[in-house]
Amino acid sequence: MAEDVAIVGAGQSRFGVLREGMKALFAQAFFEALDSVDRGMDLGQIKEAFVGGMAFGGGQLGNLAALMTEQVGLVHVPSRRVENACSSSSYALRDACFALRSGLVDVALVAGVEKMTDLPADRQRYWLGVSGDTEWERLAGSTFSGLYALMASRHMHEYGTKREALAQVAVKNHGYGARNPKAHFQRAITLEAVLGAPMLAHPLTLFDSCPVSDGATALLLARGEIAREFTDAPVYVQASAGSSEFLALHDREDITTVPGTVQAGKEAFRQARLEPKDVDLAELHDAFTIGEIIALEDLGFCPKGEGGPWTLDGRTEIGGDVAVNASGGLKAKGHPLGATGAGQVVEVFEQLRGEVGKERQVSRAEVALTHNVGGSGATIAVHIFSR
Amino acid sequence: MAEDVAIVGAGQSRFGVLREGMKALFAQAFFEALDSVDRGMDLGQIKEAFVGGMAFGGGQLGNLAALMTEQVGLVHVPSRRVENACSSSSYALRDACFALRSGLVDVALVAGVEKMTDLPADRQRYWLGVSGDTEWERLAGSTFSGLYALMASRHMHEYGTKREALAQVAVKNHGYGARNPKAHFQRAITLEAVLGAPMLAHPLTLFDSCPVSDGATALLLARGEIAREFTDAPVYVQASAGSSEFLALHDREDITTVPGTVQAGKEAFRQARLEPKDVDLAELHDAFTIGEIIALEDLGFCPKGEGGPWTLDGRTEIGGDVAVNASGGLKAKGHPLGATGAGQVVEVFEQLRGEVGKERQVSRAEVALTHNVGGSGATIAVHIFSR
Repeated sequence: MAEDVAIVGAGQSRFGVLREGMKALFAQAFFEALDSVDRGMDLGQIKEAFVGGMAFGGGQLGNLAALMTEQVGLVHVPSRRVENACSSSSYALRDACFALRSGLVDVALVAGVEKMTDLPADRQRYWLGVSGDTEWERLAGSTFSGLYALMASRHMHEYGTKREALAQVAVKNHGYGARNPKAHFQRAITLEAVLGAPMLAHPLTLFDSCPVSDGATALLLARGEIAREFTDAPVYVQASAGSSEFLALHDREDITTVPGTVQAGKEAFRQARLEPKDVDLAELHDAFTIGEIIALEDLGFCPKGEGGPWTLDGRTEIGGDVAVNASGGLKAKGHPLGATGAGQVVEVFEQLRGEVGKERQVSRAEVALTHNVGGSGATIAVHIFSR
Repeated sequence: MAEDVAIVGAGQSRFGVLREGMKALFAQAFFEALDSVDRGMDLGQIKEAFVGGMAFGGGQLGNLAALMTEQVGLVHVPSRRVENACSSSSYALRDACFALRSGLVDVALVAGVEKMTDLPADRQRYWLGVSGDTEWERLAGSTFSGLYALMASRHMHEYGTKREALAQVAVKNHGYGARNPKAHFQRAITLEAVLGAPMLAHPLTLFDSCPVSDGATALLLARGEIAREFTDAPVYVQASAGSSEFLALHDREDITTVPGTVQAGKEAFRQARLEPKDVDLAELHDAFTIGEIIALEDLGFCPKGEGGPWTLDGRTEIGGDVAVNASGGLKAKGHPLGATGAGQVVEVFEQLRGEVGKERQVSRAEVALTHNVGGSGATIAVHIFSR
């Protein structure tokens, strides 16, 4: 990818249980992104829009993209919704990268939006469930916590991963969320609190799980050649890799790994001509704590089975081998499905530009990676960025 | 676009009220496309998948793309759902064109799938309604027939368009559907039958409306440079243009035109360096008969207000100025939402290769256009193709 595609602006709403509706959240994120473009950008320069979203709740299941972009003055811009459950806006980013690299589009919007909390709990369960396999999992009573609990149990059995290692992911990420004013949870928690929280599905408790969040995110992309018309500090997309996997867990040979993550990770590092040790910070898909540990291993940050010890040894903290989820991650920053992937990139954009504030800034950050997963591993996207 | 992107295979299931489920329909379309590749294609050559769909009915709202592609052996291929209501798979095509033109992908799958008829009528109305503006139209009781009826009434008022002209669109398209073994309706109808059918919303009767259809469609795209590895008769994508429009009709200045269609049409002809008179056949979005007449005008096939007379004079029939909806169109071939756009291209592929059979073959067809609309004009895609 080299310097073909640059991010020149990024913005996001707060994540959380918010009063604003979807249109207002989208506009907040979009205009924050537009305002973040150092030398300014006219609406008329944006020629294509890719909007990630599950259309959670079903209020506007069709044509969501057109409805969102019209709110911010982008009528007549070709716009589409990209949906891959929780990885939706990472695929919106991937498709925008294709558009910019085609030479047909100079500037594009990538956005994500989800309004989740205005549904009652039983409807939330339905809408979350339809990201998993409906025939074999959802209708049989499986939930995402149940699926990730199976992965966690097997990982503990195969590799001796300690329960405390899972909990430590939550402790770490809540600690960073507490320093992120946009995070859903801005409160540090203790290991004891995680272990003693209500059980969701053994061994995962409530604090091993991400929350149900509202939120919106936006990125403004420009072809590398013209990026400096917009800013002196572009962030380049060095790699965009995707993969898919059997949606239902029972179809996979080994549930302690997500082969799609392994494949997409290798492809991303190949494109970027980098290795895991070159990465200063990574936003990994920690919808459940076990997800971060498996991703650490699958992406090659540590050997298989070492994700737990790495976490307990502090090697994934800011100042460690790689700063993982310095934003708070899905776990504490929040997880508004379709907005999450682009939100990981908002964090990367600000980290690589040294803009997050000293409380959680990764020092001398030059290379960052995002890893976003749809369902319990069905659609995977890995992106690598550099200053 | 020139010869950068080629279609080397195309397939589709029958459209209609079908017994097969979504997975089976998808597989039918995909393997028909694969079998249509003259020199063969290995599954492993397909590197990216773009699946259009509304996920009608909600059975698999998230990760539909991964679930569909795993059915046909494309596990580990990056796959995403592209959703723009009825124009979903045209945007899947647009995004695949970007991917191929980026140089990063050599061969891609574009597909569409929708299973609509397994819901009761009231749920069908809900799922159709969510492609229109929920806040201002659906919740106020508007239906798509009602919205298109407003457009028809105004067009009749402004331009003296005759009721019979609308009906003639249905008569023509049913006539072609009767010769298309894949069409939902394979029965010719009379002008009297249209005019005398049950009223949906004045002036539109039941036969001015497309049906609710099941179906799936698939296209195999290759970069132009390598297209002849797959076939001696590739069909090139000469132009891909998109636009968006205010979702709700009340936001538009004039409802006798869709400015997004005008804009996308101009852009498509500019890219292809062609004019409307160069087009031999066009698949236009005739979800309602008035839609075909407005599209004829907006795309420049005839002057504004002349769509009705053109239709009544037979200028849009096979053998006329331009053969419009020789497949039967959405009106008679059927309209399985997310599958429709790619289905228009299946027709174009077979027409330009002279493969549809003499009953409805457009003779010496060299240039074709597809026009696909999401909602009552919110998302528009126009593509131009050549042999």
